[in-house]
Amino acid sequence: MVSQPFAGVLVPVLTPFTASGEPDAGRFVAFCRWLLDEGADGLAIFGTTSEANSMSASERMALLDRLVAEGVPASRLMPGTGACSITEAASLIRHAVGHGCGGVLMLPPFYYKGMTDQGVYDFIAAVIERVASPALRMYLYHIPPQTMIPFGVELVGRLIKAYPETVVGLKDSSGDWNNTKALLDAYAGTGFGIFPGSEVFLLDGLRHGGVGCITASGNVNVPGIRRVYENWRTPQADALQAEITRVRMTIQKYPMVPALKRIVAHFHDDPAWATVRPPMERLGDAQSAALIADLEKIGYSLGERRREAAE
Amino acid sequence: MVSQPFAGVLVPVLTPFTASGEPDAGRFVAFCRWLLDEGADGLAIFGTTSEANSMSASERMALLDRLVAEGVPASRLMPGTGACSITEAASLIRHAVGHGCGGVLMLPPFYYKGMTDQGVYDFIAAVIERVASPALRMYLYHIPPQTMIPFGVELVGRLIKAYPETVVGLKDSSGDWNNTKALLDAYAGTGFGIFPGSEVFLLDGLRHGGVGCITASGNVNVPGIRRVYENWRTPQADALQAEITRVRMTIQKYPMVPALKRIVAHFHDDPAWATVRPPMERLGDAQSAALIADLEKIGYSLGERRREAAE
Repeated sequence: MVSQPFAGVLVPVLTPFTASGEPDAGRFVAFCRWLLDEGADGLAIFGTTSEANSMSASERMALLDRLVAEGVPASRLMPGTGACSITEAASLIRHAVGHGCGGVLMLPPFYYKGMTDQGVYDFIAAVIERVASPALRMYLYHIPPQTMIPFGVELVGRLIKAYPETVVGLKDSSGDWNNTKALLDAYAGTGFGIFPGSEVFLLDGLRHGGVGCITASGNVNVPGIRRVYENWRTPQADALQAEITRVRMTIQKYPMVPALKRIVAHFHDDPAWATVRPPMERLGDAQSAALIADLEKIGYSLGERRREAAE
Repeated sequence: MVSQPFAGVLVPVLTPFTASGEPDAGRFVAFCRWLLDEGADGLAIFGTTSEANSMSASERMALLDRLVAEGVPASRLMPGTGACSITEAASLIRHAVGHGCGGVLMLPPFYYKGMTDQGVYDFIAAVIERVASPALRMYLYHIPPQTMIPFGVELVGRLIKAYPETVVGLKDSSGDWNNTKALLDAYAGTGFGIFPGSEVFLLDGLRHGGVGCITASGNVNVPGIRRVYENWRTPQADALQAEITRVRMTIQKYPMVPALKRIVAHFHDDPAWATVRPPMERLGDAQSAALIADLEKIGYSLGERRREAAE
């Protein structure tokens, strides 16, 4: 296996939309820059948190074009390239690889239900063979609550074995530590990069060979999450983990994406950020106020530097 | 409400793929013509049975272009235009309306789970407003086994009320007669066109104000299904329904789409038809032989005219 290029705190970047519902490229680029500035190791743009599937393929490609044109390093990007069709997935991947993206995050063909492992294997294999690029580094995106189609331990092993230079990692958004642990036990030792899909499992993951996390709440808490990543072998690790878990648990009492957008809107003083695309619903004003109050109650504030500046 | 333009037997047309996995436009056009010739009242191309979500938007549009270019009447077409993004759904619909298609079949944004009725309403409303065409006739596609997002009775009512000229019908693929009946009781009287998603419910549907069915097995049994549609008020209706139900039940013991493709391959003497796109799996030879034997056992043969010619 080649060495996989990502580690640390990766953020599935929220996508801002204008009042009329179009992707807001200006705010998007500025926010990506800010996240890197906060210490994000990579940007998993176009994930579930990004409302990626609420954008057409061409909208996603246009945002990536803009990001790269404005100088955000493509090597730090892991765009989501999931699609239900081999052809659309392949064209999204070709576009990302063409820009030099460090990797891509790959959903299974999520419209389908009750497919066999063989069918999902054939789908991924067909996509990889259609792209046919030695530069492709693919991360499998296991998120059964959304897709109902798992990348199970055995299927992952088959894909690694067939495409050792290409299938180099996985994001586990099952929310099930036992599943993450089974994947880590099976494949972390080979250099396969496994990222829990929530920072709640960051420390446990690192202790079992994980390489970081790719987490929605990274949009609003890179510094906190990085502290765990940087200090995971120290005596403070558990206390630091408890702190970021508390923030995450507070946020996820609310619908995740609308809540994160409200937090960004509030702490960046930019109300436009609250906009979501249907079928998501904007968080109501009362709920938003309750969320912000909950966060302030546990001492949360946005960003390390802001916190330090205020101290 | 405007009068909705479809009734009778609609077929969600299977999509043929070449050996290398590309949509086979020639076979597709020929098959569409054959279905109309067999008596299909309309062609719901790009449905679930069509592996529509295994094709990119541009592949779907190219097939529709070709179909219309070759003279298949657009008024008889109800293409599936489902997509998870408002923008892609709107561009598929604009393309279909531009060709003069009789209607479009509209999935909810199926990547998402646990969305509210308000969110789904906002999605459909945004698509309709983005298309902004008085020529659009939209049929809602209720298929919770695939989407997990229902078009429930109340939500359907809200959409009809808001867009009476546009939201003119529904395909109910819940497989739950109680749901179909609830929809029929609520809206059939207003001229809203309700199609069960299986011919198993055709007669029951017609007796409660339904207007036909849109059914996968229409790909291989238009004449049988039409006999029920044409004779539903006669004393033979129940016996005719029992006959098509028997055929359907025989087929659906197997994975539906691969099985239908094998039936077409066998009875049209065209092995190329057996090809599916991953994640679906081609039906194995032994299973296919068992399926054909099962069908022959119950006296099934392909097409009314062939049957009569053989008698």
